[in-house]
Amino acid sequence: MIKRTGSYTIKFCEPPVILGYGAVAGKKESEGPLGKCFRKIYYDSRAGQKTWEKAEARFQQDAFMMALEKSGKRTEDIDYMFAGDLLNQLISSSYSMRSFDIPYLGQYGACSTMAQGLIMSSMSICGGAAKVAGVVTSSHFCTAERQYRYPLEYGGIRTQTAQWTVTASGSVVLANGSKGIGVRHATVGKIVDKGVTDINNMGAAMAPAAFDTIVKFFKDTATSPDDYDRIYTGDLGQVGTDVLHELMMTEGYDISNVHRDCGLMIFDREKQDVHAGGSGCGCGASVLCSKILSDMENGKLSNVLFIATGALMSPTANQQGESIPSVAHLVHLSIEN
Amino acid sequence: MIKRTGSYTIKFCEPPVILGYGAVAGKKESEGPLGKCFRKIYYDSRAGQKTWEKAEARFQQDAFMMALEKSGKRTEDIDYMFAGDLLNQLISSSYSMRSFDIPYLGQYGACSTMAQGLIMSSMSICGGAAKVAGVVTSSHFCTAERQYRYPLEYGGIRTQTAQWTVTASGSVVLANGSKGIGVRHATVGKIVDKGVTDINNMGAAMAPAAFDTIVKFFKDTATSPDDYDRIYTGDLGQVGTDVLHELMMTEGYDISNVHRDCGLMIFDREKQDVHAGGSGCGCGASVLCSKILSDMENGKLSNVLFIATGALMSPTANQQGESIPSVAHLVHLSIEN
Repeated sequence: MIKRTGSYTIKFCEPPVILGYGAVAGKKESEGPLGKCFRKIYYDSRAGQKTWEKAEARFQQDAFMMALEKSGKRTEDIDYMFAGDLLNQLISSSYSMRSFDIPYLGQYGACSTMAQGLIMSSMSICGGAAKVAGVVTSSHFCTAERQYRYPLEYGGIRTQTAQWTVTASGSVVLANGSKGIGVRHATVGKIVDKGVTDINNMGAAMAPAAFDTIVKFFKDTATSPDDYDRIYTGDLGQVGTDVLHELMMTEGYDISNVHRDCGLMIFDREKQDVHAGGSGCGCGASVLCSKILSDMENGKLSNVLFIATGALMSPTANQQGESIPSVAHLVHLSIEN
Repeated sequence: MIKRTGSYTIKFCEPPVILGYGAVAGKKESEGPLGKCFRKIYYDSRAGQKTWEKAEARFQQDAFMMALEKSGKRTEDIDYMFAGDLLNQLISSSYSMRSFDIPYLGQYGACSTMAQGLIMSSMSICGGAAKVAGVVTSSHFCTAERQYRYPLEYGGIRTQTAQWTVTASGSVVLANGSKGIGVRHATVGKIVDKGVTDINNMGAAMAPAAFDTIVKFFKDTATSPDDYDRIYTGDLGQVGTDVLHELMMTEGYDISNVHRDCGLMIFDREKQDVHAGGSGCGCGASVLCSKILSDMENGKLSNVLFIATGALMSPTANQQGESIPSVAHLVHLSIEN
């Protein structure tokens, strides 16, 4: 059963449990602080495929197969697959899922897609529509750069506020269950647009959306940052992180000690020339499906908020002078005994 | 409560009810057989906006406001908005929903998005996550042509199998209820790809997906075409319709009498030069939210299947030699007393 708690938050009364998870990453990610956490690394950006787009679909398949294997389930057990990515028409997802005989529901929340997928799959399980559901998302530096910015061969200079799209995929398999890492609450965000038009500063565009959703969650659940072991955001980077901390203080919440941003965790900004940090659907997803869930499984963390933010921008809209609409979805994960 | 029926179908035990619906269409659609069914027509393809993309967002806002007004609900009553369209990064949806303070979940199923949205909103309501939810989708001939095919100014010649993207939007508002048009069953489709690579023949690519989903539904519910007043598909057009009828016969189902395709209903193929028929997210959505739901409300129809199909193709994937992955989602609507 699912109950509404406050105005925006839902409570999964019997929390769906994460049975399996897996993350695949690229070479640059393997050289970062979390390199040892990823269970599979592709040192070739094409992952043996003819194009980067096909490689990204391959990343998704691998991540899903890892999550599935760990879950002990088979593809025919999966009632729904919630998948999404950054590419036009979500081609990484539809081409990766084409080879599986699984009902498919494409999700688009830009970099918030992993949180959105967790929410949709938990809703489907806890509401009775599914027994087992899967989520997969991905991003790839080379596919994203040429779609959103410039052909890589052009060698455009990146601004200091720009983030580096992570080449990675993360996947989870969830089911009804009583023990393990449970999805206990969720808050779906509204679209927030504070008028930022600089597509090289997505952190600043997304931070107000994260702020809006996190504050709603705290108020709906009458909790505060101290109630959680960690509060993770997906990929605000350094600029967005600074903005978020400042905004949270205006509501009296100091999250600076407990907050970590996956975009800052995945790369070493001193050594890796990624400017403001990592970004992309695959950033939050791959950090969640390696470091975070592993730390929860190993008892290091037991009560965690995961907020993934998405900049819902498009090059077409940007060229037409539009600002960047952003969204943030929150998932509360806790160990169920 | 939601119960699984057979291997792929779900039953909404207390069917969510469609409280309001609305459709907005363009000039060409107003000149077709359903012209009088649309409650609002824009004779200007830019709908008073500076660009076609902004116009498409405006279409969505208008359709949603109509559905909301008819539902008797206010924006603050809507717990979730499930929205999607054909444009890269779903900009019609994110820009249309930016002005509302409603939690937003972007859905991408190409032309299947209205059925997907109905399923997701019904799941959220029947599972307890939402009391009231909305769905909106749209398409626009001018935005779709320049994104998927050629700049309109180029004047490319269209093949006879090509379909004409409908300029329209449809929206529904659903809630818990005991009387009215209820969402009783749903079947989420898997990705089906029979190797069609011709992006000017989407009907042929999508028909096998519709076939797969409809047959699963009939088997799961132990029903047959005769049990329904009408079986509507979203936008198979003439080519896809012929293929679907033939495929259904291979399983012993003759749907030729009871089946109608929204892509064939919305235009007069003799007079309107649309070749194989209409297509686009806005096609099935606007026909559903005008003619079909109105006929149900007026007692002409009481038991209807609505199957929206999506060709999940992308110009990038097509240029890389990929075939067109397709998907079809089914919704069973019935009058609840």
